[in-house]
Amino acid sequence: MPEKIHVPGIPDQEFIRGSVPMTKEEIRALTLCKAKIQPGHIVYDIGAGTGSISAEAALMACTGKVFAVERNCEAIDLINQNIRKFNLNNVVVVHGRAPQALADLPAADVIIIGGSGGALGEILIACDGKLSAGGKMIVNAVTLETLCKTRDYFLTVPHYDVDYTCLSVTKVQPAGSSHLFRAHNPVYVITASKG
Amino acid sequence: MPEKIHVPGIPDQEFIRGSVPMTKEEIRALTLCKAKIQPGHIVYDIGAGTGSISAEAALMACTGKVFAVERNCEAIDLINQNIRKFNLNNVVVVHGRAPQALADLPAADVIIIGGSGGALGEILIACDGKLSAGGKMIVNAVTLETLCKTRDYFLTVPHYDVDYTCLSVTKVQPAGSSHLFRAHNPVYVITASKG
Amino acid sequence: MPEKIHVPGIPDQEFIRGSVPMTKEEIRALTLCKAKIQPGHIVYDIGAGTGSISAEAALMACTGKVFAVERNCEAIDLINQNIRKFNLNNVVVVHGRAPQALADLPAADVIIIGGSGGALGEILIACDGKLSAGGKMIVNAVTLETLCKTRDYFLTVPHYDVDYTCLSVTKVQPAGSSHLFRAHNPVYVITASKG
Amino acid sequence: MPEKIHVPGIPDQEFIRGSVPMTKEEIRALTLCKAKIQPGHIVYDIGAGTGSISAEAALMACTGKVFAVERNCEAIDLINQNIRKFNLNNVVVVHGRAPQALADLPAADVIIIGGSGGALGEILIACDGKLSAGGKMIVNAVTLETLCKTRDYFLTVPHYDVDYTCLSVTKVQPAGSSHLFRAHNPVYVITASKG
Repeated sequence: MPEKIHVPGIPDQEFIRGSVPMTKEEIRALTLCKAKIQPGHIVYDIGAGTGSISAEAALMACTGKVFAVERNCEAIDLINQNIRKFNLNNVVVVHGRAPQALADLPAADVIIIGGSGGALGEILIACDGKLSAGGKMIVNAVTLETLCKTRDYFLTVPHYDVDYTCLSVTKVQPAGSSHLFRAHNPVYVITASKG
Repeated sequence: MPEKIHVPGIPDQEFIRGSVPMTKEEIRALTLCKAKIQPGHIVYDIGAGTGSISAEAALMACTGKVFAVERNCEAIDLINQNIRKFNLNNVVVVHGRAPQALADLPAADVIIIGGSGGALGEILIACDGKLSAGGKMIVNAVTLETLCKTRDYFLTVPHYDVDYTCLSVTKVQPAGSSHLFRAHNPVYVITASKG
Repeated sequence: MPEKIHVPGIPDQEFIRGSVPMTKEEIRALTLCKAKIQPGHIVYDIGAGTGSISAEAALMACTGKVFAVERNCEAIDLINQNIRKFNLNNVVVVHGRAPQALADLPAADVIIIGGSGGALGEILIACDGKLSAGGKMIVNAVTLETLCKTRDYFLTVPHYDVDYTCLSVTKVQPAGSSHLFRAHNPVYVITASKG
Repeated sequence: MPEKIHVPGIPDQEFIRGSVPMTKEEIRALTLCKAKIQPGHIVYDIGAGTGSISAEAALMACTGKVFAVERNCEAIDLINQNIRKFNLNNVVVVHGRAPQALADLPAADVIIIGGSGGALGEILIACDGKLSAGGKMIVNAVTLETLCKTRDYFLTVPHYDVDYTCLSVTKVQPAGSSHLFRAHNPVYVITASKG
């Protein structure tokens, strides 16, 4: 019998969260499904926030390694707490700004960009330089600007095959004897596969 | 280095499809993430259609087994074609109507209900009888009636923890030099965990 | 040159709001478009909340009359404030519980049900008794239960032509130099036309 | 008793349609609500398609006038058929390409842009020149490019107040004894009010 595998989609409440925004369960699960992370993979999680994507990526990469890149101090603290909570030994926390903070990292199989701190254009160029052939770059766009700039960038690099998927999740939430329709904000998940 | 694991979300075009409706990539991926299928699991896929969920469940269950239950002949043929295409040796095709067709199956760890042929109430009762403690039952509702009846049923079985998630996917589809917003139909993914 | 007509969809911030939930601009506009309120119409707004729908209905009905039915005291106060703010002289505030509070009202051309306080079944029956032939009943469902019960009711009254429309609104909200995608909760707008 | 007013949202099946895409009822209704067309208004409908928006705009503008601008011959024919069907005498069909076709039109109170034939940037500049102070320009974006370019343009003209609203409509469509969830494609309705 093979060992337990990690299926993406840990419930939100299992993560330690502060005031830092967190990618919600369903968006996180689909981002990780699109990323197709395999044991041994090198993964960057840029704008790692609470570290929820880094944590699940680390569970999927096993013998691989996840670099959680984040510039915000409060977020760095949460990432470290979540690493301890999930007993992870393959997450490297990189406290700094992308793209500069990426310079010394090894080549990546998967790069997930959840936040860009206003430097998306430079980050995408730097990530293209770091991504192995056959690798995947995934941008989770929660603003119109990230969506438009990501499109603009990938028009300039035709060796990528790009999929744009917008996910709108509505939870049907128990409230007394009823269930309320509660929308989460939509996220555009842009998956670019390097040819 | 560990072996390759199956991350859910095979692109739609990789399946052999006829006129039978197929669960689209993102809904299928999220359904399988919610199901948390592990190596060794026994899975039922009720209303298996083209077999796309059965195929991915089989890749996740590895040493386990997937029972693809379907009453429609054209769909049975497609399921068999997809089993061959993906080289699966752990899918058992059950040609018949649920709940009758479930009678002789072994206890299940995960039950996915994608179609019910008008017998949803009876199917849910039968599935509760077959599902192991700690197991998960997942209903993908594409009609208002399935959504309402699933809610009605789970009100009667308080030992289940039930999550209702509606997933609306919009593909941003290349069309010449533009990208068109193309909505897929929303699906309510209802995940009931047996306490 | 004809006089000014009222086109539905007053911006949310123009209403006086407390902690009472308010139907947002786009849902309100669509509800009033489906209602096809004409000058001279008698309109009920059941579960009137802040009175935003009553106010716009009154502007459309002109020489007609709107009965704003509400049981909550804080909401009654807000309705009265909004009536004054918009200078309306054709809104009658009915402080009480539906369906009892409807007993003495004149026959209606349009009935909008935004809240039911747990008595939806009885309210729908009472409204059918009050609605003129050719009139329209509109239910705005924000819970699964309201959606399911409304469907159940209209199955029993085949002389209605029923349209179910779910509206999901995402505002693209300025935030510094970016625009964030911000989802409002979806609402099922159920429009039943009496044959 | 005042006369009948036109409330936007004519059902789709009442229009004569060919293979030309038509703005669906709910999107059309909300576009016209955002436009706040009044009796006497001059309205342009650019990329008029079947003329469904022109027809409703004409019913709202009464003594005003609607210029239906369209370059496609099949669409021009449909617009004329719908003008006859709805007995409209205040729609002027302009067969030509925007922005050139706008040159001789009178100043506009409301401009609705449903299609741009690849010349969106020039059309927006020309429309700004034609739009009266206090007027409204509305772009219905069904492609990512139209959405991004419309944002880019309005960044350059700070005297506009711009609202971005994405509308996702799901019809719950009767199918035998069930109701299927059927998504329409989302549309970004961008409303720019000239200060």
